[in-house]
Amino acid sequence: MTTREAETALRACLPRNGLVTDAAAVRPFETDGLTAIRQKPWAVALPDNVDQVKAVLAACREHGVPVVTRGAGTGLSGGARPMAEGLLLVLSKLRSIREIDLEACTATVEPGVTNLSISQAVARHGLFYAPDPSSQIACSIGGNVAENSGGVHCLKYGLTVHNVLGIRVQTYEGDELVLGGKALDGPGYDLLAAMVGSEGMLGVVTEVTVKLLPLPRAKRVLLAAFDDVETAGDAVGAIIAAGILPAGLEMMDRLAINAAEDFVEAGYPRDAAAILLCEVDGTEQEVRADVARVSGVLTTRGAGVTLAETEEEQAKLWQGRKAAFPAAGRLAPDYYCMDGTIPRSELGAVLRRIGEMSEACGLAVANVFHAGDGNLHPLILYDAGVPGQLDQAEKLGGQILSLCVQVGGTVTGEHGVGVEKLDTMCEQFGAPELAQFHRLKEAFDPAGLMNPGKAIPTLARCSELGGMHVHGGALPFPELDRL
Amino acid sequence: MTTREAETALRACLPRNGLVTDAAAVRPFETDGLTAIRQKPWAVALPDNVDQVKAVLAACREHGVPVVTRGAGTGLSGGARPMAEGLLLVLSKLRSIREIDLEACTATVEPGVTNLSISQAVARHGLFYAPDPSSQIACSIGGNVAENSGGVHCLKYGLTVHNVLGIRVQTYEGDELVLGGKALDGPGYDLLAAMVGSEGMLGVVTEVTVKLLPLPRAKRVLLAAFDDVETAGDAVGAIIAAGILPAGLEMMDRLAINAAEDFVEAGYPRDAAAILLCEVDGTEQEVRADVARVSGVLTTRGAGVTLAETEEEQAKLWQGRKAAFPAAGRLAPDYYCMDGTIPRSELGAVLRRIGEMSEACGLAVANVFHAGDGNLHPLILYDAGVPGQLDQAEKLGGQILSLCVQVGGTVTGEHGVGVEKLDTMCEQFGAPELAQFHRLKEAFDPAGLMNPGKAIPTLARCSELGGMHVHGGALPFPELDRL
Repeated sequence: MTTREAETALRACLPRNGLVTDAAAVRPFETDGLTAIRQKPWAVALPDNVDQVKAVLAACREHGVPVVTRGAGTGLSGGARPMAEGLLLVLSKLRSIREIDLEACTATVEPGVTNLSISQAVARHGLFYAPDPSSQIACSIGGNVAENSGGVHCLKYGLTVHNVLGIRVQTYEGDELVLGGKALDGPGYDLLAAMVGSEGMLGVVTEVTVKLLPLPRAKRVLLAAFDDVETAGDAVGAIIAAGILPAGLEMMDRLAINAAEDFVEAGYPRDAAAILLCEVDGTEQEVRADVARVSGVLTTRGAGVTLAETEEEQAKLWQGRKAAFPAAGRLAPDYYCMDGTIPRSELGAVLRRIGEMSEACGLAVANVFHAGDGNLHPLILYDAGVPGQLDQAEKLGGQILSLCVQVGGTVTGEHGVGVEKLDTMCEQFGAPELAQFHRLKEAFDPAGLMNPGKAIPTLARCSELGGMHVHGGALPFPELDRL
Repeated sequence: MTTREAETALRACLPRNGLVTDAAAVRPFETDGLTAIRQKPWAVALPDNVDQVKAVLAACREHGVPVVTRGAGTGLSGGARPMAEGLLLVLSKLRSIREIDLEACTATVEPGVTNLSISQAVARHGLFYAPDPSSQIACSIGGNVAENSGGVHCLKYGLTVHNVLGIRVQTYEGDELVLGGKALDGPGYDLLAAMVGSEGMLGVVTEVTVKLLPLPRAKRVLLAAFDDVETAGDAVGAIIAAGILPAGLEMMDRLAINAAEDFVEAGYPRDAAAILLCEVDGTEQEVRADVARVSGVLTTRGAGVTLAETEEEQAKLWQGRKAAFPAAGRLAPDYYCMDGTIPRSELGAVLRRIGEMSEACGLAVANVFHAGDGNLHPLILYDAGVPGQLDQAEKLGGQILSLCVQVGGTVTGEHGVGVEKLDTMCEQFGAPELAQFHRLKEAFDPAGLMNPGKAIPTLARCSELGGMHVHGGALPFPELDRL
């Protein structure tokens, strides 16, 4: 498979230095943002343009080489973990902004363009691209499509799937699919939505047309301090239920608050059990009206509310939230960041349960998350140097994700499944859904060589974990056994 | 296939009178809203509950009977046209609202529940379900999912796909798929989005969980009259480009204006070349601010603007728009309603071209449509009693849809492909996309017996129409020949 012939064929499609096989030179590519899992790829391809991508895929098909596609490598679930016998196809050089259509409010870009640079390119026209993952300065739009990325402002403006209008996809079989475009909706099955969040398993995205929104004219940030976590969680649902859709609604608990304060002095109240950061945006009139209504909901629930009016005050409040992850890194030698989503109405109860579970196992948990979306990011603090603690942390993480599924949530909000959450997928889905995922994969990639082994667990693996009813020794859907 | 045994098996799964085979009794089911195309089904099944639906599907599978699912039968593209040799599975008796979750802001309902009755059931809690097709008093939520229905307010609130959080699906193979739920996003491929708009070709939806939104506190309707159609079209893009997202933004041309006036006296200016109806909603402050900004954009473009303040005035303006289709029915013995979508920026130019095409062929065209979404509904007026006029109308309709595709649009905005638009799909898509649609269908329905022959044209048909490059007499994707 990974023969000399394959290497020669690949070199022929790529520019000089475009194929990297040297062990030292491939090292920077052996992991994505989930650094605990490392694997050197057989080779790394760095094409300059889409024609080279097509040629690389054709050569891989010819020689049966599996392909793992990588954008900026900022993913947090190991979705771009390389394969020892596979090619890592890196799209970071495809970074041209092809078209900005101001009347249609769209930008058409190559997959390696970073998330933030789209907003930067259109800012002078008063527009922006809404989804804003924390890694937006580095992460690429192709990776955002692969993971259906979210961000602080997705509560109001939606996830990647709601902001991408069209894509071009190269399949492993050699077809180019043109899906969606600048017009609303489209006939036929929604292959565009199926591609978004498919973690590089269905094809290679080589062009993305995104929706641009007008930059809000005004915004304000409110800080609400609560005496207990459960009330803070319940206040989140109350704001939404009052008919207000904030641009962002984030929550931090005491551990996270104090870590952030130690790190950047954002001005958070250290004695609060939890804080909410609520950003409202729109016209000046809308913002004033929303500030009054949000304040009303929060004070009714006993919160102390502070309003950041100036840009400097607002930036300072957000600085603490943005620094929360590195700040948590100073609380303990290691932390394990979970990513579950729950119905908003369950926030208070689930936070209480996480507190109890943390106490029972003796590992502290800091909570910093997109509360409005119900997207939790519990940070489990541990010390890998203490024997057994890593195992304990992973066990607690699994318990938290199980809890998310039990209350009607999911095992990932925005980080994807990758390799990290394969096992918890068996808790979330039954055999019929998993079988259907495999059938969809086969409909796009019959050879099964696009990013194999990621995102969707095999039925055999789920059966081993006990999550699947096995009758008479045979797995359900025997025709999918080979997957 | 449609044997006595199949009939006996089906009768055994259904309540008394639940299987209709009598020729007179099946007649009401021989067409959906596209009444030009009629076909009596072999039999009609009317299950009372989901268990009966499962049993019916099992019996059909056992006997190889094709299944066409039907909701309220209000579809406009023939998606629920029955088959002479197939079962028509009618879900109109499954109309229970199973759960309203006020904290999560969701309603979980059976597929036969009508669109409007969801909003009615939650109105006392200050909530509503946003997508509002014109047929909302009659159409069912299951049908809305099948067609990814839109409506006047989808500009601001999105299509069905943006407002459905979860579904249960029964596949022809006998599996139940639980897709999505009350929490944001979900791991795995987005099978939920793939099901929405799949026109009954992938499975039978037996439960739908929808998102509920807070009823806006205030709204206003503006009427803007223009001296020419192209300026009106361009004003639509200008409103959105100014950063305003109206709840609804509709357009009517002179022919439609006068037909509506003759019918309901809505108070439209009869001498205007075109009018825009713009509804803004939100809090009282937001609404006031938006009215001022929209008026500014419109008057700058030379429009005469009238504001409807009271509920009565607003209702009167909307009454004309809502009556426009029946009113157009009085302009000529017959009309043919098209449904294309174009990028908003093309509105002015495309309306001008439609005017030229109408003049060239001698058939008048009235335009009434969702301008904000770029979703056109040209009504081609003709007289089926005059030999050749039906053919002429169909030809003009085809030309209009081709024009939509040429400017980057699509051949359907909200009515679906059904049987009506199979041929125009060949213009919109190339062989790779069509092949991928067929592969996706096979992944859900390997037997190919769910609503066969709808929505996706065969490659052979597209080749006949000349839209596909055929090399050496062989179609591309020979493995899909049988489809």
